Amino acid sequence: MPRFALLVEYHGAPFAGWQRQADQPSVQGAIEAALAKLEPGEHTIAAAGRTDAGVHALAQVAHCDLSKDWDPFRLSEALNYHLKPAPVAITRAARVEDDWHARFSAHERRYTFRLLMRRAPATHDAGLVWQVSHQLDAAAMREAAQHLIGLHDFTTFRSSICQAASPVKTLDELTITEVDGWSGPELRFFLRARSFLHNQVRSFVGTLERVGAGAWEPERVRDALEAADRSACGPVCPPQGLYLAGVGYQDDPFQAQK
Amino acid sequence: MPRFALLVEYHGAPFAGWQRQADQPSVQGAIEAALAKLEPGEHTIAAAGRTDAGVHALAQVAHCDLSKDWDPFRLSEALNYHLKPAPVAITRAARVEDDWHARFSAHERRYTFRLLMRRAPATHDAGLVWQVSHQLDAAAMREAAQHLIGLHDFTTFRSSICQAASPVKTLDELTITEVDGWSGPELRFFLRARSFLHNQVRSFVGTLERVGAGAWEPERVRDALEAADRSACGPVCPPQGLYLAGVGYQDDPFQAQK
Repeated sequence: MPRFALLVEYHGAPFAGWQRQADQPSVQGAIEAALAKLEPGEHTIAAAGRTDAGVHALAQVAHCDLSKDWDPFRLSEALNYHLKPAPVAITRAARVEDDWHARFSAHERRYTFRLLMRRAPATHDAGLVWQVSHQLDAAAMREAAQHLIGLHDFTTFRSSICQAASPVKTLDELTITEVDGWSGPELRFFLRARSFLHNQVRSFVGTLERVGAGAWEPERVRDALEAADRSACGPVCPPQGLYLAGVGYQDDPFQAQK
Repeated sequence: MPRFALLVEYHGAPFAGWQRQADQPSVQGAIEAALAKLEPGEHTIAAAGRTDAGVHALAQVAHCDLSKDWDPFRLSEALNYHLKPAPVAITRAARVEDDWHARFSAHERRYTFRLLMRRAPATHDAGLVWQVSHQLDAAAMREAAQHLIGLHDFTTFRSSICQAASPVKTLDELTITEVDGWSGPELRFFLRARSFLHNQVRSFVGTLERVGAGAWEPERVRDALEAADRSACGPVCPPQGLYLAGVGYQDDPFQAQK
């Protein structure tokens, strides 16, 4: 059966997360239902990152096996037709080798987090950002973020239900940029690692927000990390500012295509 | 009664437009209902621009008369509290003179239009842009737009139900910028005039899109304008890419405040 890689964008709000669930809407379930319209029967797809409820994707990657040797462009068009009106879009499709795997072939995940700083509730960006009503000190947050970069035991910053075999991971990037966004001043966080622990990004951002607000000294983030204790973490921030922004592969299936 | 100016942001989707209507939700109705929570009784507010159904605002301006001499910041906070969960936010409030009028004191209106060019349906920006699935020639659109700038009889570009006394208006600006937007390549239109006719911006954008797609030569826009005939207009584009982006006053009430 020919295998296809799918580049997937979605709005997380209506979903209980990526992963298929028996009685709640999921992104995986929506795409599998669309695949069943093209080729009747059961479909099971795998994804690079299993995002939580409310988390968005700009460029999630999944793969599926089909009977027919679809033209990739026509496959994406047909899936988008059947996905409507769910806020899920296949932005690219590509034919891949039979042993290529969206999750196991991936060597890097990239996340973006949008934090809007303004008083009045956001209207156009509601559900697309985490909004706080106070200003934040980006320089202090950057100083604190430096402690998190590199190889560490991230026990402090992973949820207690995290299923990863080890809390030891390498964080390759955590940069914070000030952006004049559509609804006002934003901090945009860019994170990059081979893989992330459950709730790791939201644990980072929620903790760094405390530093930006002046409630935590930057050094307290280093101390929290070294404690390797979940109770040393700051508050976990809400999901609606988080986007799975990209997945890296040795041979990018979408690059290769054109 | 003290008069207050309100700077208002809203998402147009759930509303039949700015103007209060007997049996449909309106932005004006939502704000008047919030005012009635602060000071019981009937409230009637006036706005600089009466936007149509589905049209958004980044910075609409309205004014209201209240009994109490509210602190402007507390007024905006109280209104935002009562406006929830409607996607309407008071981003600023200011005390103004009793004869200041949001509509009649205004000498300039600014509109922004977002046109997204991509094939897959937008998820995060659904309802916030007009999406076309083909590329557009921005240079040709700019050439055509030059014909529209200045003092003209805009009969071609106003709706047949437009109530303005005269179709002769001065268009001060129509610029088109290419932007790498959140969901892909966008054209952003910036328009500025003392006032606009009904459906004028959407008639412009819909017509210019035909030029960008290669269906119209840029000169045809000049001919359409000179015809002063509604039937010479191109298609009127949908409302969801349109934003009332600002209103100009001789003495800006929000600038004056801080």
